[in-house]
Amino acid sequence: MQFHQDGFFPGDPRISDPQDRVVPPPIKRPMPKQVDVMIVGCGPAGLNLAAQLSQFSDISVCIADLKDDRLLVGQADGIACRTMEMFQAYGFADQIKQEGYQVNEAAFWKPDATHPNHIARTGKVEDVEQDLSEMPHMIINQARIHDEFLRVMKHSPNKLEPHYQRKFLGLTVDETEEYPVTVQFERMVNYSQFTKEVETVKAKYVVGCDGARSGVRSAIGQTLVGDALNQAWGVMDVLVNTDFPDIRIKSLIQSHKEGNMLIIPREGGYMARVYVELDKLKENERVSRDEMTSDILVAAANRIIAPYTMDVKDVAWWSVYEIGQRITTAFDDGALGRAPRVFLAGDACHTHSPKAGQGLNTSVMDTWNLGWKLAHVLRGLADVSLLSTYSSERHEYGQALIDFDRQWSSMFSAKPKSAENPDGVDPAEFQRYFKLFGHYTAGVSIQYRQSSVIGSNEHQDLATGLKVGFRFHSAPVIRHGDAKPMQLGHCHTVNGAYRVYAFAGNQAPMSEGCGVRQLADFMMNHGDSPVKKYTPAGAEVDSVIDLRGIFPCHHHALERSQLDPLLTPVKGKLGLKDFEKVYCADHLTGPDIYDLRGIDREQGCLVIVRPDQYVAAVLPLTDLAGMNAYFEQVLVPQ
Amino acid sequence: MQFHQDGFFPGDPRISDPQDRVVPPPIKRPMPKQVDVMIVGCGPAGLNLAAQLSQFSDISVCIADLKDDRLLVGQADGIACRTMEMFQAYGFADQIKQEGYQVNEAAFWKPDATHPNHIARTGKVEDVEQDLSEMPHMIINQARIHDEFLRVMKHSPNKLEPHYQRKFLGLTVDETEEYPVTVQFERMVNYSQFTKEVETVKAKYVVGCDGARSGVRSAIGQTLVGDALNQAWGVMDVLVNTDFPDIRIKSLIQSHKEGNMLIIPREGGYMARVYVELDKLKENERVSRDEMTSDILVAAANRIIAPYTMDVKDVAWWSVYEIGQRITTAFDDGALGRAPRVFLAGDACHTHSPKAGQGLNTSVMDTWNLGWKLAHVLRGLADVSLLSTYSSERHEYGQALIDFDRQWSSMFSAKPKSAENPDGVDPAEFQRYFKLFGHYTAGVSIQYRQSSVIGSNEHQDLATGLKVGFRFHSAPVIRHGDAKPMQLGHCHTVNGAYRVYAFAGNQAPMSEGCGVRQLADFMMNHGDSPVKKYTPAGAEVDSVIDLRGIFPCHHHALERSQLDPLLTPVKGKLGLKDFEKVYCADHLTGPDIYDLRGIDREQGCLVIVRPDQYVAAVLPLTDLAGMNAYFEQVLVPQ
Ligand SMILES: Cc1cc2nc3c(=O)[nH]c(=O)nc-3n(C[C@H](O)[C@H](O)[C@H](O)COP(=O)(O)OP(=O)(O)OC[C@H]3O[C@@H](n4cnc5c(N)ncnc54)[C@H](O)[C@@H]3O)c2cc1C
Ligand SMILES: Cc1cc2nc3c(=O)[nH]c(=O)nc-3n(C[C@H](O)[C@H](O)[C@H](O)COP(=O)(O)OP(=O)(O)OC[C@H]3O[C@@H](n4cnc5c(N)ncnc54)[C@H](O)[C@@H]3O)c2cc1C
Repeated sequence: MQFHQDGFFPGDPRISDPQDRVVPPPIKRPMPKQVDVMIVGCGPAGLNLAAQLSQFSDISVCIADLKDDRLLVGQADGIACRTMEMFQAYGFADQIKQEGYQVNEAAFWKPDATHPNHIARTGKVEDVEQDLSEMPHMIINQARIHDEFLRVMKHSPNKLEPHYQRKFLGLTVDETEEYPVTVQFERMVNYSQFTKEVETVKAKYVVGCDGARSGVRSAIGQTLVGDALNQAWGVMDVLVNTDFPDIRIKSLIQSHKEGNMLIIPREGGYMARVYVELDKLKENERVSRDEMTSDILVAAANRIIAPYTMDVKDVAWWSVYEIGQRITTAFDDGALGRAPRVFLAGDACHTHSPKAGQGLNTSVMDTWNLGWKLAHVLRGLADVSLLSTYSSERHEYGQALIDFDRQWSSMFSAKPKSAENPDGVDPAEFQRYFKLFGHYTAGVSIQYRQSSVIGSNEHQDLATGLKVGFRFHSAPVIRHGDAKPMQLGHCHTVNGAYRVYAFAGNQAPMSEGCGVRQLADFMMNHGDSPVKKYTPAGAEVDSVIDLRGIFPCHHHALERSQLDPLLTPVKGKLGLKDFEKVYCADHLTGPDIYDLRGIDREQGCLVIVRPDQYVAAVLPLTDLAGMNAYFEQVLVPQ
Repeated sequence: MQFHQDGFFPGDPRISDPQDRVVPPPIKRPMPKQVDVMIVGCGPAGLNLAAQLSQFSDISVCIADLKDDRLLVGQADGIACRTMEMFQAYGFADQIKQEGYQVNEAAFWKPDATHPNHIARTGKVEDVEQDLSEMPHMIINQARIHDEFLRVMKHSPNKLEPHYQRKFLGLTVDETEEYPVTVQFERMVNYSQFTKEVETVKAKYVVGCDGARSGVRSAIGQTLVGDALNQAWGVMDVLVNTDFPDIRIKSLIQSHKEGNMLIIPREGGYMARVYVELDKLKENERVSRDEMTSDILVAAANRIIAPYTMDVKDVAWWSVYEIGQRITTAFDDGALGRAPRVFLAGDACHTHSPKAGQGLNTSVMDTWNLGWKLAHVLRGLADVSLLSTYSSERHEYGQALIDFDRQWSSMFSAKPKSAENPDGVDPAEFQRYFKLFGHYTAGVSIQYRQSSVIGSNEHQDLATGLKVGFRFHSAPVIRHGDAKPMQLGHCHTVNGAYRVYAFAGNQAPMSEGCGVRQLADFMMNHGDSPVKKYTPAGAEVDSVIDLRGIFPCHHHALERSQLDPLLTPVKGKLGLKDFEKVYCADHLTGPDIYDLRGIDREQGCLVIVRPDQYVAAVLPLTDLAGMNAYFEQVLVPQ
C-alpha cells in the first residue's frame, strides 16, 4: 500500500478521505463502581491487557486514561516478529502486514576511509534470519496498533471501550473487602473551575500501565532504578526526498564528527523515521528541550548524512525522546507480604532506549504474560499464587533487556574505530553484534525459567526446537480435516486455554499402540483426565486444555473415521464436531515440522503450551503422570 | 477462524455479538438527477462496477436495487483464484483468505463396486494445480463479498452507497442530449397506497446488473437464448454432524440410484453447502418449487450419502436453484447502430448451472472488463469506440463458458458407467475432466482475442508464460527499494492505469546499452513518449501508463543512484519520489520470474498490461514504435 504522498494524515489509510478516518470517541459514561480489573493507561501495555481480558464475558474490566482520545501519531513504531505472532493470535497480523513497512534488511554506514566527512556503506545484512519466526519484522505508527487493540476490544464479548479524561490520583488496598483495591480518578473535564470531580472505582486487581511517569508505581512505593544517564535522541517522522540510497532500508549511520543517526523506513512508501543523537549537536544547537525545533533536527540529519542530502517536505511528528535504562525492583505490590493486588506493566516498570525498538514490544509482552494469569485466577481456574509468577518472569526479562540495551546503546553511540579513535567500535563488530542480537530484537529470546508454570527441560531432547520456557516456535503443517497448509502455531488464539500438542511417533497412526490415540483416549474418557478435572461444568471441552494431534504421515494416510470421536470433540450450543484438531506433516514444502523443530520421529512427544504461547513442558508422549503433575501445579479442580 | 458453532448469524464473524454485525443501511436520499453511470442492481456484477468506478473522484455514479438492504445470506459462494487476484487489487483478498474456506482438494465418490447402494471414494485430487495462481480458491458467503465491495465503495473518493428500494421501470435513449439515457425507477416504499413515486435519473451510460430476470435486458430488446432445459438443484447451507469422512473437503458424489450431490465446505469450520440433484427425487417428493422444504432435501442427501448419515443441526439458508445455460446475443445496445449506451453484465446476460461455481465469478469479471473502459471514455482518455470491445470480449467468453458448463453439467448429472449403464460416465474420465477444466473454474482460462485492445502474439516467444490476451500471471520478485519479497502482480491495483513491465535482458543493469534504461529515458524525456502524450495535465505521471522495471540480477547488484531519476518518479502534492517501481528477480525461492514466466534472459521484453490486468502486448524491449502503436489505438492524446 502506498499512502501519505500528499502529506501525513492519521487513521486507516484504506479510507480515502482523511476526515472519515476519525473514529468517534466512545460515549462518555461514568466509571463503573466496581470491576474485576482496573487498568490505568491506554498505551500498548494497557490496551493489550484490555483486549485479552475482554475475550471473557465473565470478567469485568475498566480501562482509563488521562488523554482526551486515542493516540493519533508518534511514539514507537517497531513491531518485533514475536509481537506479530501475538497479533496473529488476535487476528490482526494480516492488517499490519498489509499496511506497515516490512523490515527485510539493515544497512550499515560509517565514515568513508578516504573522505571521513562522507559516509559510506559498509554492508547490508538480512534483518530477520531464516525461520526465526513465521512473521516478519514490521514498522508502523504505534497509533495504528492502538486502533487494532481498540477494535478487538469493541468487537469482543465485553464490547470494552476506554474511559478517557480520567487521571489516576491514588489507590488503597484493604484485603478484607471483596473488591480490595479502591482507586481514585479525577475527571479532567469539569463543569466549574472550583469543583474537582473525583470518581472512585473498587477493583479486585489494578494494573498500572501508565507509562514512564507512572502514578500507580508511586502509589505502591516502587521506583525506577538504574542508569541515571539519560540519552537524548531527536526523533521525527518525515516525508522526505533524498539521494541517500538506503532510504527504504533500515539504516544505522555513524558519522565521523556529527554524531549518529538511525533511519527507519515507514508505512506508505514515502515516510521515514529519523533518530538523531542529540549530544553531538553543535554547541549553539544544544538547546533545552523546549527550544528544540524540527529544523534543528533536519539540519543535524543533513550534516550526518553528507554527502547525501535530505529534503524534508513534511514533518508528521517529532519529539525529543530522552530516556534512561531503568527498572523497578518488582512489577507488583507483593513485597507487602500478601498476594499481589496491584501490578505494573510496560514503561511504568522499565524503560529502554529507542534504538533496539523494545519499548512497545516489551510492554505488550508484559501484559501478554499477565492477562491469562489474571483471567485464570478470576475465573477460578487457577490459584491466586499464579499471579506472583508475573513479576518474577517479567522482571528477569526486563533486567536482561536493560543489560542488552545498555550494551547496544553504547555500541550504537560510540565512535567508529579508527587511528584517532582506537577505543571506538569496529564496524564489523557492530554488524556481528547486530546479527547476534537479532533474536533479542525479534522478541524471541525471552526464556522463562523453571517455576510453577514452567516445567523442567529434562525431556528437551524429544523436541530440541521447541525449547521449554521459550515461545512455541510455529512450523508448517497440513490440517487434516480440510487439507489446508497452515502454521501450527496459528491455532493458538487468545482464548486463554493451554494447548497440548501430541506429536505422534512411529506407530501406525491411531493404532492401538499409537501414543496420540492413547493420550486422546485418556483425555476424553479417563477419570484422571485433566480435561475432565479442570474444565468447569458447561464450558467447552477445549476451553481450558485444548488437545491437538500431529502425525508425521501424509494426510491421505489417515482417515477421518480413525480420528472419531477422540479427536473430533463436540462444541457449541448445537453440539457440532470440530474438525480442526488434527494436523499432518507437510510433505511438500521441504523439511517438515519434525525436522524443523527437532521432534523425535520414533517416540514422538507431548508439548504443553501456556495460554500466552510459551512452552511449559516437553514430555514423552506416554508420560501421562508428568502431564497431570504439570496441570496439578497450575490449575485447580472444578 | 472458527465460527457459527452456535448457529448461523450473518455479517462479520470477527464481531462477537451478532447484533453488532448489522451494518446500518445507508441514509435514504433521493436519487441524483443526473450521473455519468447509472448501475441497476447490487449483485456482485453491479457492486464490482460501482467499486471500480468509485475510485475516480471525477466520475459520478449511482447504483440502485429493489431490495431493502444489503444481502445477508445465500446465493453463490465459490471464489475462483482469478477473482481473488482481483480482490487483491482492491486490497481485501487477505480478509477473504482469513475468513473463508480454502479449497485444497476435491474428493470423488461413486457407488461402491460390491455394495452399489453405498458410496465409496474413488480418489482425491488437488483442487488448484501448482503455480496456477498465487491466490487460493476460496468459499465464502456471497454476502460477505458484497460487504467488502460496499466497504471499498464507502471508503473511496466518491464515498458511494447504494440507493435501495428502487425498482427499475424502463429507459429511453436520446443521443442528442448530454445525458442521453433517461431511466425510471419506482420507489418501493410509498407513503400512500394510491401514489406510486417514480424517480427519473439521466445518465451517460446505464449498466444493467439486475440479474437473470433483468428488466434492463428487456428494455434494450435482448433475450437470453440457449438451452431451454433447466436443471433444478436443491441447495442448502447447513450446520451438520456427519460420519462422511470428507465433510471438510469439496466432494462430488454420484450415487447408484438416488442422484448426485455436491458438498462444498464453508467458512467457519462447521458449515457446508450441499447441492442435491432434484430430478432424482422420489416420486412423492417431486413437489412444485413452492412446496419444497429443506427436510425433503435433507432426506434426499441422506439417501445419496449412504452408508453415511448427515445430522443437520441448523439450516442457515436453502433454496431451489433452477437455471438453464443461456446467453444474450450481445451485452450492449450497440446493435442499434450507434456506440453503446446501455450495457448488460452478469446474470442479466448469461446464466450457468451452479456446479462449476461460475455465476458470481463470471459476473464480476464482466464488470471488471467494463469498469476501466467506461472510466477511460468518461475521463477523456480513450475514444468511445473502446466501449464496443466490452460486448465482443465478454460475449465470446460467456459463450465458451456455457459450452463448458453444458458439458460439465451433463457429465456431472450422468450416471456412473457400469454394466447396466454402459453410456454412463467413467469416474476416472470424470476426474480427468475435472482436472483439465481446473483452469476454467479457476477463472484463468479467459483469453481475449486480438483486437483494438489486445495486440498480436507475434513476440510471444519473449515471454512464453505471459500470454497475450490472458491475465498477467504474477510471480515472486524482490522490490528493489526496500528488499521486500512480493508478488509482482500485486503492484497492479484498481487505479485504472496500464502497466508497462520492462524486463531487462543481459546488458549491465541501467548501463547505456540497457533496454530498461533506454525505455525509461524515452518515457520520461522523449517528445513521443506515450506517458507525455496521454497523461492529462496535472495528473500523476503514472496514472495512465505506469512503467515498472524488472532486472534479473540480485537486488544488491543495483544501486538506487543508478535508477534516479528515470525510475523514481515524483508524485503527489509534495513531489515525493516513488521507490516502488523497480524489482529484481528473487534469488532465494527457486526458479525466478524469468524462469517461471519464460522470459527471454538475453533480450528481455516489454509487457503491456491493461488496467484490468490482461496482457495486451508482449514486445521486444527496444520496440518503442510497437509500444507507441499500441497506445495510439487505445488512448487519445491529451
Ligand atoms: C512522547 C513519547 C515518544 C516516544 N518515542 C518513542 C520512540 O521514538 N521509539 C520507541 O521505541 N519508543 C518511544 N516511546 C516509548 C513507547 O511509546 C513506549 O515504550 C510504549 O508506548 C510503552 O507502552 P506503555 O503502555 O507501557 O506506556 P505508554 O504508551 O506511555 O502509555 C501510558 C498511558 O498512560 C497514561 N497515563 C499516564 N499517567 C496517567 C494517569 N495519572 N492517569 C491516567 N492515565 C495516565 C498516558 O496518557 C498514556 O496513554 C515514546 C513514548 C512517548 C511517551
Ligand atoms: C436465489 C439465488 C440463489 C442462487 N444460488 C446460487 C448457487 O447456489 N450457486 C451459484 O453459483 N450461484 C447461485 N446463484 C447465482 C449467483 O448468485 C449469481 O450468478 C450472481 O449473483 C450473479 O451476479 P449478478 O450481479 O449478475 O446478479 P444478482 O446477484 O442476481 O443481482 C441482481 C440484483 O439486481 C436486483 N434487481 C433485479 N431486478 C431489479 C429491478 N427491476 N430493479 C432494481 N434492481 C433489480 C436484484 O435485487 C439483485 O440484487 C443464485 C442466485 C440467486 C438469485
